[in-house]
Amino acid sequence: MIDRLLGKIRQTGAPIVVGLDPMLSYVPEQVQKEAFEKYGETPEGAAEAIWQFNKEIVDHTFDLIPAVKPQIAMYEQFGIEGLKAYKKTIDYCKEKGLIVIGDIKRGDIGSTSAAYAAGHLGKVQIGSRTYAGFDEDFATVNPYLGSDGVKPFIDVCKEEKKGLFILVKTSNPSSGEFQDRLIDGKPLYELVGEKVAQWGEEHMGSTYSYIGAVVGATYPEMGKVLRDVMPKSMILVPGYGAQGGKGKDLKHFFDKDGLGAIVNSSRGIIAAYKQEAYKKFGQEHFGEASRAAVEDMIADIREAL
Amino acid sequence: MIDRLLGKIRQTGAPIVVGLDPMLSYVPEQVQKEAFEKYGETPEGAAEAIWQFNKEIVDHTFDLIPAVKPQIAMYEQFGIEGLKAYKKTIDYCKEKGLIVIGDIKRGDIGSTSAAYAAGHLGKVQIGSRTYAGFDEDFATVNPYLGSDGVKPFIDVCKEEKKGLFILVKTSNPSSGEFQDRLIDGKPLYELVGEKVAQWGEEHMGSTYSYIGAVVGATYPEMGKVLRDVMPKSMILVPGYGAQGGKGKDLKHFFDKDGLGAIVNSSRGIIAAYKQEAYKKFGQEHFGEASRAAVEDMIADIREAL
Repeated sequence: MIDRLLGKIRQTGAPIVVGLDPMLSYVPEQVQKEAFEKYGETPEGAAEAIWQFNKEIVDHTFDLIPAVKPQIAMYEQFGIEGLKAYKKTIDYCKEKGLIVIGDIKRGDIGSTSAAYAAGHLGKVQIGSRTYAGFDEDFATVNPYLGSDGVKPFIDVCKEEKKGLFILVKTSNPSSGEFQDRLIDGKPLYELVGEKVAQWGEEHMGSTYSYIGAVVGATYPEMGKVLRDVMPKSMILVPGYGAQGGKGKDLKHFFDKDGLGAIVNSSRGIIAAYKQEAYKKFGQEHFGEASRAAVEDMIADIREAL
Repeated sequence: MIDRLLGKIRQTGAPIVVGLDPMLSYVPEQVQKEAFEKYGETPEGAAEAIWQFNKEIVDHTFDLIPAVKPQIAMYEQFGIEGLKAYKKTIDYCKEKGLIVIGDIKRGDIGSTSAAYAAGHLGKVQIGSRTYAGFDEDFATVNPYLGSDGVKPFIDVCKEEKKGLFILVKTSNPSSGEFQDRLIDGKPLYELVGEKVAQWGEEHMGSTYSYIGAVVGATYPEMGKVLRDVMPKSMILVPGYGAQGGKGKDLKHFFDKDGLGAIVNSSRGIIAAYKQEAYKKFGQEHFGEASRAAVEDMIADIREAL
């Protein structure tokens, strides 16, 4: 899957991923209205609204991008119905040829991580049969529990030819509270990065490893260091756009060939129609506004590389 | 909810929680068979099997215990159908008067944590109406992202009178890999514990805070230190029984009145019928085996206090 991801990045010339994190407040009124007329102001209605919203954005952007990253929390907040929309979104994106990075940030003790890994990237055994649950292509993983909480995910990736992005340095303002603390003179995120590098080297695709890392666009200096610490790990870079990261800051997340990183934008793309720059599209044409925002993001990042 | 939890611990005299982590391999053959006959060897069949399994265990133990802790991964592995069984289990346990600790270990950047908090402990707004999603009473939270990843959970708990258990020192063998690393002479888990203490003191029930901590039974010496670091935080203690923790090791997780901690056992209770000590019940009477295991666990912990 890592080779497929790299192939699609080369083919599109777009090392970007669209974050499908549909807050209801991003969904244009007419889409909400239609969904609520059909299912009422209910979790089913909300799920229908975010699904139709996602579909329109995917339909307008899938040919420009290699991958999407649905944030499961935005679906999980609506309970079972929301999670059905998450699954529907995954399946639809895969049908459209997109690679799906499930932003699930799971991580637990070994046996529990094994269950998460089976449910998101692998298969479960039920009697004599096996089933895939959510079936994302990649998943994000939280490393706080150490190796035995990560290893079951790695095992499933090996088996299923899928991949991980492990949280190293997150994009949020307080990420430094624990992640930046110095241990033997090195910040914790660097130690986690060293572990990711080690896991990565043992689980290689043809040029990059299928064990990647998450490093926030909001911390470009750290991205530069971590690029060197994890030479074989693909870096998933959230925090571009709405969270403050800019294309010119991102150069050092990439290798000299302009590969090795993939930059996520969520709100900046999916709620583009609300921004001054794309207001001309109007909320009826929110999908076209998202397409224009994707084109601008690709140009911004290409210019930086 | 923290006061209700303490009240129920006093009333039952049992500072324990039963971990409803139903691996299919724990579910007795006859329960699996019946579920598969009804729904086939499908996710629906697996969900039915684990739901019937849970129900039997809850029916045989609810009068002895204050709380249950379903591990969402064990349900999530079966996709949507599994999560329906998770929700059904939560609702049933609440009907039976039990407090439900959702072992979800979520944690993300602020806006995403807010969505998880709404979906698990609070309510979501859909048009003019509000809905509760999974509606657990407590949830476990991963602190790797720092304060702004935790605060949205705290805000919802304040609003809804619910509570948290934040991962401080986890029970798994490799938890020390990052958690034990020294920062200014103190292990990371202690720094996280200090943060939990601080959040806790700002969010008090009548004697304990509704912001608690997770500290593994497998690390009793660290439990002793952390009890002092977080004097107002309830400690949820996993790792008893199957993971190796014993009653006599747990004394120092409690305060001088024998309160302040709640010990979880999952496999040791729910798969008791498979153990030598409870084999006499036979797999048809697995609920009674679980009841006997609960009684033994309570006695073991009372003796230690």
